[in-house]
Amino acid sequence: MRVLLPAGTTETALIDGISAAGAAPELMEHTPSADVEILEYGRPTTAPVTPVSPNGCPTPAAVTRAVREVIGFDATVVDAGLVQPTGAPTVDLGVEPGADIREPEAVPDAEAIFDRAHAFGASLPDDDLLIGETVPGGTTTALGVLTALGEPAGVSSSLPDNPIERKRRVVDEALAASDLAAGDCEGRPLAAIRAVGDPVQATVAGIAAGALESEADVTLAGGTQMIAIATALRHAGVDESLSIATTSFVADEQGDRLEEACERLDCDLTVTDPGFDAREHVAMRRYCAGEAKEGVAMGGALSLVPDGRMDDVLDRLEGVCDRLGIDPDGDPDSGPATHTEGDGGP
Amino acid sequence: MRVLLPAGTTETALIDGISAAGAAPELMEHTPSADVEILEYGRPTTAPVTPVSPNGCPTPAAVTRAVREVIGFDATVVDAGLVQPTGAPTVDLGVEPGADIREPEAVPDAEAIFDRAHAFGASLPDDDLLIGETVPGGTTTALGVLTALGEPAGVSSSLPDNPIERKRRVVDEALAASDLAAGDCEGRPLAAIRAVGDPVQATVAGIAAGALESEADVTLAGGTQMIAIATALRHAGVDESLSIATTSFVADEQGDRLEEACERLDCDLTVTDPGFDAREHVAMRRYCAGEAKEGVAMGGALSLVPDGRMDDVLDRLEGVCDRLGIDPDGDPDSGPATHTEGDGGP
Repeated sequence: MRVLLPAGTTETALIDGISAAGAAPELMEHTPSADVEILEYGRPTTAPVTPVSPNGCPTPAAVTRAVREVIGFDATVVDAGLVQPTGAPTVDLGVEPGADIREPEAVPDAEAIFDRAHAFGASLPDDDLLIGETVPGGTTTALGVLTALGEPAGVSSSLPDNPIERKRRVVDEALAASDLAAGDCEGRPLAAIRAVGDPVQATVAGIAAGALESEADVTLAGGTQMIAIATALRHAGVDESLSIATTSFVADEQGDRLEEACERLDCDLTVTDPGFDAREHVAMRRYCAGEAKEGVAMGGALSLVPDGRMDDVLDRLEGVCDRLGIDPDGDPDSGPATHTEGDGGP
Repeated sequence: MRVLLPAGTTETALIDGISAAGAAPELMEHTPSADVEILEYGRPTTAPVTPVSPNGCPTPAAVTRAVREVIGFDATVVDAGLVQPTGAPTVDLGVEPGADIREPEAVPDAEAIFDRAHAFGASLPDDDLLIGETVPGGTTTALGVLTALGEPAGVSSSLPDNPIERKRRVVDEALAASDLAAGDCEGRPLAAIRAVGDPVQATVAGIAAGALESEADVTLAGGTQMIAIATALRHAGVDESLSIATTSFVADEQGDRLEEACERLDCDLTVTDPGFDAREHVAMRRYCAGEAKEGVAMGGALSLVPDGRMDDVLDRLEGVCDRLGIDPDGDPDSGPATHTEGDGGP
C-alpha cells in the first residue's frame, strides 16, 4: 500500500469569495506546500504558513499525518503544480500551476500532464495505491469538469455554508470563456480539464489510469473532487474497478448523492467516521461542525486504520495539533474559517 | 530518526578509468537516479539502468532498501545535482550537477548550495538524522577535497583493486587547473569543494551544519567520502559532536586509517558487519570479496538494525536482489565490476 499525494495550485482559488483563504491569497498559495511538509515531517518546515483556521480547525493533512504516525504507510508526494517551494520531497512530472478557469484554457497542457502521470503510475511496483490531492479551489474546478462533462454536479465545501451558487456562477463564466456549454466535453475529459479544470485533476487521473493498466488496485481518496476525477476516468473509457474512500463529514453533507454518484460510476465507496465526536479537542469539534471535511487523502488514510487503533490516531492527532500551535480548548464557535482547505478547498 | 539521502552527479566520474562505470558513461549517470528509486520503491521504476555489476554485485541501495523493508525508517532524498530524471520524490534545493574537477571550478556555487542546504537541515524537526550520499566518482572528489584541505588523504574504492594512483594524478591535475597546491584551502572548505569537490559534498555538509545548529544528532553514513565531509565541517569551525557510521567492508580495507581519521576529527565511529559471509548468495559474496563496500547510506542503515534482526535483513536483501534480476547463484569470480558505485564510486 502506498499513498500518493499530488499537490498543486490553481489561480481559480484567488477568485473573491471562492476560497476560504481569500482573505490572504498570498498565504493561501503556500497551503499545499505546507500540507506536504506536514505529511512528510509532522509540521511545516519551510512554508511560511500553518494551515489552521482562526477558530482552530487544522488542515486535513494533520489527520493524514496522525494516521501515518500510527500505522506507518509509505507516502509519495507528486508536484502537480505547486506555485511555492516546499521542503518536502516531491516527484517532478513537470506540472505547472493552473490558470483561473475563467481564462480560455485553465490547464493548457492537460494531455501532456496526463501522459506523464500515466507513465509514472504505470511504473510503480505497488499492488495497492491510494491517491489523494491537495489543491485550494479544487471543488470549484471539480464542479467545472463535472459540468463540462454533462454529469450531475454537486460538490462539497470546507465551509459549513457551501458557497455553491457562487461556484456555479464562476463555472458558467468559465465555460463561456472557453466557448463551451454544459455537456460539450462528453467523452473528452482532458478537454474538460484543459478548459475548466486544474492540473491536479490531470495528474491524479493520469496516475490512476496508468496504475490500473499495470493491474494495481486504485482507491481515490477524497470526496466530490474524486467523484469528478472518477467521472473523467469513465469518460476516458477506463473501465477497471475503482474505489473511492472519503470521510463521514463529506458523506453527511452529500447525503444520498454520494452513493448515487458511486453507483453511476461503478465505484466502490468506503466512508470512515473517525469518531471525532468523542473528543473535546477544538480541532475535532470543528470537523464535527462541518469545517474542512476532507482533503490531503484524509478519508483514505482513515480507511487504513485497523480496528481498535482509531483511538491511537485521535491521540496522535492531538499531538500533531500541538505542534501546529493549536490551543486544544480554543473556542470553536468564533469567527469564520480562513486557511483550511478541505475536500480540496471551499 | 530520519535517513537523508543527497543524490547527485559530477562529470569527474566520466574520466577514463576513474569510475567503474566508465565502460558505459551514458548509463552511469543514471545510477544515482536509479538508487533513489530503489530506496523509495524497492526497484528502479523509470531509470533505464539497474545498478548491478556484471558479476552480480548490486548497488548498496539494495542493502539500504532491505534494511528499510525490515525496520521501516523514514527516508528523504535530496536532489544534490542529479543529471538524469528520477521517479522518486526529491527535495529541490536548486543544485546543479558538478563539473569535472580538472576544470577551474567544479562546483561554482558551492557556497550558495551550502547555505540552502543549511537552511533545509536547520528546518527539520527530527532529533536524529543519518545522512548518506550517492554520487558516482565521489571518492575521487573526496580525495580532491582532503588534499586541498591539507589532510591525510586515503580513500576507498568500490573495486577490490583501488585505482588510487590514478585518482591522485587526477587530483593533482585538478588542483593545478584551479591554481592550488595541496593544503591551500586550509580553513576554507567551501573553496576546496568549489575547486575540486562535488555538489553532494556541499549539500551533505550544509545539511549537517544546519541540523547540528538545531541541536539534532547527526551521523554521516558512509566511508572515506564522509571522512572528507567531516573534515570539511571541522575546517568550517563546526565543533559539535559528530558520528560516522560505515560498513565493515570499508573498515577492513582502510585498516587503522579509519579510526585514526575519526580520532583526529573527534568523530564517533560505528562499524557494522552485516554477516554476509554466512550466505551463499552472489550479492553477499561480492561484498565479502571487496566489491562496492559502501554507499547510499548502507553502513548507517545497517547500524540501525536491532539485535536479532540482521537475518531478516539478509533474507530481505535476497528478495530485493531477485527484483533487480540477480541470479543468486551467479558466478562471483567472473569479470570486472562495471555498474556499481560503492563508497561513492571507485
